[in-house]
Amino acid sequence: MIRKVLVANRGEIAVRIIRACQELGIRTVVAYSTADRDSLAVRLADEAVCIGPPPAAKSYLNAPALISAALVSGCDAIHPGYGFLSENPYFAEMCADCKLTFIGPPPEPIRLMGDKAIGRETMRKAGVPTVPGSDGEVRSLEEAIDVARQIGYPVLLKPSGGGGGRGMRVAYDEADLQRAFPTARAEAEAAFGNGALLLEKYLTRVRHVEIQVLADQYGHAIHLGERDCSAQRRHQKIVEEAPSPAVTPELRERMGADAVRGIKSIGYVNAGTLEFLLDQDGNYYFIEMNTRIQVEHPVTEQVTGIDLVRWQLLIASGERLTLRQEDIKITRHAIECRINAEDPERDFLPASGEVEFYLPPGGPGVRVDSHLYSGYTPPGTYDSLLAKIITFGDTRDEALNRMRRALNECVITGIKTTIPFQLALIDDPEFRAGRIHTGYVAELLRQWKETLNPV
Amino acid sequence: MIRKVLVANRGEIAVRIIRACQELGIRTVVAYSTADRDSLAVRLADEAVCIGPPPAAKSYLNAPALISAALVSGCDAIHPGYGFLSENPYFAEMCADCKLTFIGPPPEPIRLMGDKAIGRETMRKAGVPTVPGSDGEVRSLEEAIDVARQIGYPVLLKPSGGGGGRGMRVAYDEADLQRAFPTARAEAEAAFGNGALLLEKYLTRVRHVEIQVLADQYGHAIHLGERDCSAQRRHQKIVEEAPSPAVTPELRERMGADAVRGIKSIGYVNAGTLEFLLDQDGNYYFIEMNTRIQVEHPVTEQVTGIDLVRWQLLIASGERLTLRQEDIKITRHAIECRINAEDPERDFLPASGEVEFYLPPGGPGVRVDSHLYSGYTPPGTYDSLLAKIITFGDTRDEALNRMRRALNECVITGIKTTIPFQLALIDDPEFRAGRIHTGYVAELLRQWKETLNPV
Repeated sequence: MIRKVLVANRGEIAVRIIRACQELGIRTVVAYSTADRDSLAVRLADEAVCIGPPPAAKSYLNAPALISAALVSGCDAIHPGYGFLSENPYFAEMCADCKLTFIGPPPEPIRLMGDKAIGRETMRKAGVPTVPGSDGEVRSLEEAIDVARQIGYPVLLKPSGGGGGRGMRVAYDEADLQRAFPTARAEAEAAFGNGALLLEKYLTRVRHVEIQVLADQYGHAIHLGERDCSAQRRHQKIVEEAPSPAVTPELRERMGADAVRGIKSIGYVNAGTLEFLLDQDGNYYFIEMNTRIQVEHPVTEQVTGIDLVRWQLLIASGERLTLRQEDIKITRHAIECRINAEDPERDFLPASGEVEFYLPPGGPGVRVDSHLYSGYTPPGTYDSLLAKIITFGDTRDEALNRMRRALNECVITGIKTTIPFQLALIDDPEFRAGRIHTGYVAELLRQWKETLNPV
Repeated sequence: MIRKVLVANRGEIAVRIIRACQELGIRTVVAYSTADRDSLAVRLADEAVCIGPPPAAKSYLNAPALISAALVSGCDAIHPGYGFLSENPYFAEMCADCKLTFIGPPPEPIRLMGDKAIGRETMRKAGVPTVPGSDGEVRSLEEAIDVARQIGYPVLLKPSGGGGGRGMRVAYDEADLQRAFPTARAEAEAAFGNGALLLEKYLTRVRHVEIQVLADQYGHAIHLGERDCSAQRRHQKIVEEAPSPAVTPELRERMGADAVRGIKSIGYVNAGTLEFLLDQDGNYYFIEMNTRIQVEHPVTEQVTGIDLVRWQLLIASGERLTLRQEDIKITRHAIECRINAEDPERDFLPASGEVEFYLPPGGPGVRVDSHLYSGYTPPGTYDSLLAKIITFGDTRDEALNRMRRALNECVITGIKTTIPFQLALIDDPEFRAGRIHTGYVAELLRQWKETLNPV
């Protein structure tokens, strides 16, 4: 069993990992940058080691510094959280070379899924439906035009090495594509150091539905149903839920079986998520796999009663996954709001400043995963996530009414947050009816801003 | 359906009621004393009405003031919470007379159970086992001696009109009883304005196990399993849990069936709790019934997934209890720690002062019901309950390990709390093994204090 874990991350996920370790009797060392000296994770961990200054390249992305921190503090494992080095196969290899357990999958599946084109091709070969598109990189505009003619417009150009929605371009016809191709390539080169582009059919009015999986080192794998993350703004999820209002038990079973077959084909181990687009006819298409714990993992935990971070630790310790597929029952509904330090009235402009006063919501059916405290100033250099508020209940409406109550109750002063828009979203009739698609939040945001500044 | 509720209480239970109302779309008016002007309940409720100064007799016990507050603010119902007027049949009658829905049982069952002797006799006639003792009041020392000879020593003298352990006396032999009787009578007179005493067999090394019940206005009643509240200090519960480590499914079924038969025999409606003593041979004895929501109700909510305060509101609105007995499944384990403003190192001396900094624990499997915020000064005039921390998990050990994590994480500065002793209790080998009785905490407390001040 793992005895002592280096938490190679920050913010709420560092706190989440520390909590899971404490409950298992595992000691923790948090690696922190100078900007995170005052973080809650530093206070909660058994030990803390400074690994350098911001930006992340000098600390949270500095693999040798993290490995050293783990070794000098006597850790036998590293939890990478999400972002930073969590999906870096070289880091996973370095851990193995230094006899440190990397709490995540082996390097090879990380590598395979890290390249989206290869990831999609790999899943397609395993029989998982994928979005029609180029088989791998489109190397020239001519090739792009050729593929687009075969699959039909609109099409989406996306960086092969990227993530988080950066550098994507939609083309509605050939003229569009001619303009978009060089721009997209230059952006991909600038953002990811890799100009390779994929081209695929641009699906509209689709939902984002993802399947959570768990696999042990002995070939046993299960899925834990889906999360619906269709409430996105510029490809950034803002409200997530489980189960999806658009997924029937029969569809869940098919998507889940595909996901499990997919991860078995790549020798996957530990927690992971396969992301799909789901169209209005119930067709689904694999888009990418995240080979790590995700921000929105708590909604799955709340509806299945399974602690995913605990299982990450147990599986990495070599324990068998004792859960069988038939044990996974989804009987409740859970919603998560990502409370970001952003001003929704000003296009989600990042907000900064001291959190003068913080009082999280409480009571039944409410979970809060946060690194805030009164008097904390979140460093401006990292992501803007302040807190995740998760509510749950027997029905979707119960969970949503509880979320309204929790958001109204939550006090965060001194810094702007996304709460005002999330309050509008959860009471929006289309969202309540479960009818939204990934473009809906942009539409609602336009309406909402008009109500703020009536002419 | 109830539209607007007067919350005739304070502290965490006022917050709990407001939360349940908000989730059902019911408006709330909190009745507050001048000492509670700055309370969280006042901030969270839709409206707030001052009903007088402390002490409680001039405000929270002032029935006419509460009725007026409800009427002038347009409420159609009153939730009495626990303590104060919650078990006062006259108040329930006044509500009815003023066409206000009292969110609790009808006056008659409150009256019956409010007198412990009558309550016990009533339950005995319904076939619920009771502690051997006097049939009603013992009117003289001679009668007390007579009954004690029949049932055997040790015996317990307790005020018929009392509660919360006040005025109780144990007698181990006849000489003891002769000394104790006049004292107990005088104390009962002073504390409750009623010198009537009951005498019963004093059971030692017993557990305190109570059954939660729900009943609607149409004769349908169910039980929701038991809570174990054996961790008591001077009859004050400090840690509660569900299920009880000492109750088998078969025993739960028998106790539950007795409880349901008992409440049906008195025409009980709404939520209530039957308290029992459970001996080491699995014999159980009804001691009293609380005709209201209890402080420790959340552990039942966490293991059954049923929101008891919501059901109080629905039942009082005239809705049918749609839960069937066979729907109640207890599949998890929950623990509650009552965090009191008391100094465990100084015999739980009430502590006072400003809560300078408050940061509740969070993350998976943790629920916090509290009225605290940073900068709040709890009025010294009321009970010392600051917060209830509830943790839950698949097993008892998981819930306890989570409680250790949550208690360590919880920050309350500026005021002494019971947390240090609760941390010792939840890791005590006897408590962990589920072997304690109602006298155990007193024993452990002596040991614990020695570790604090080693000779």
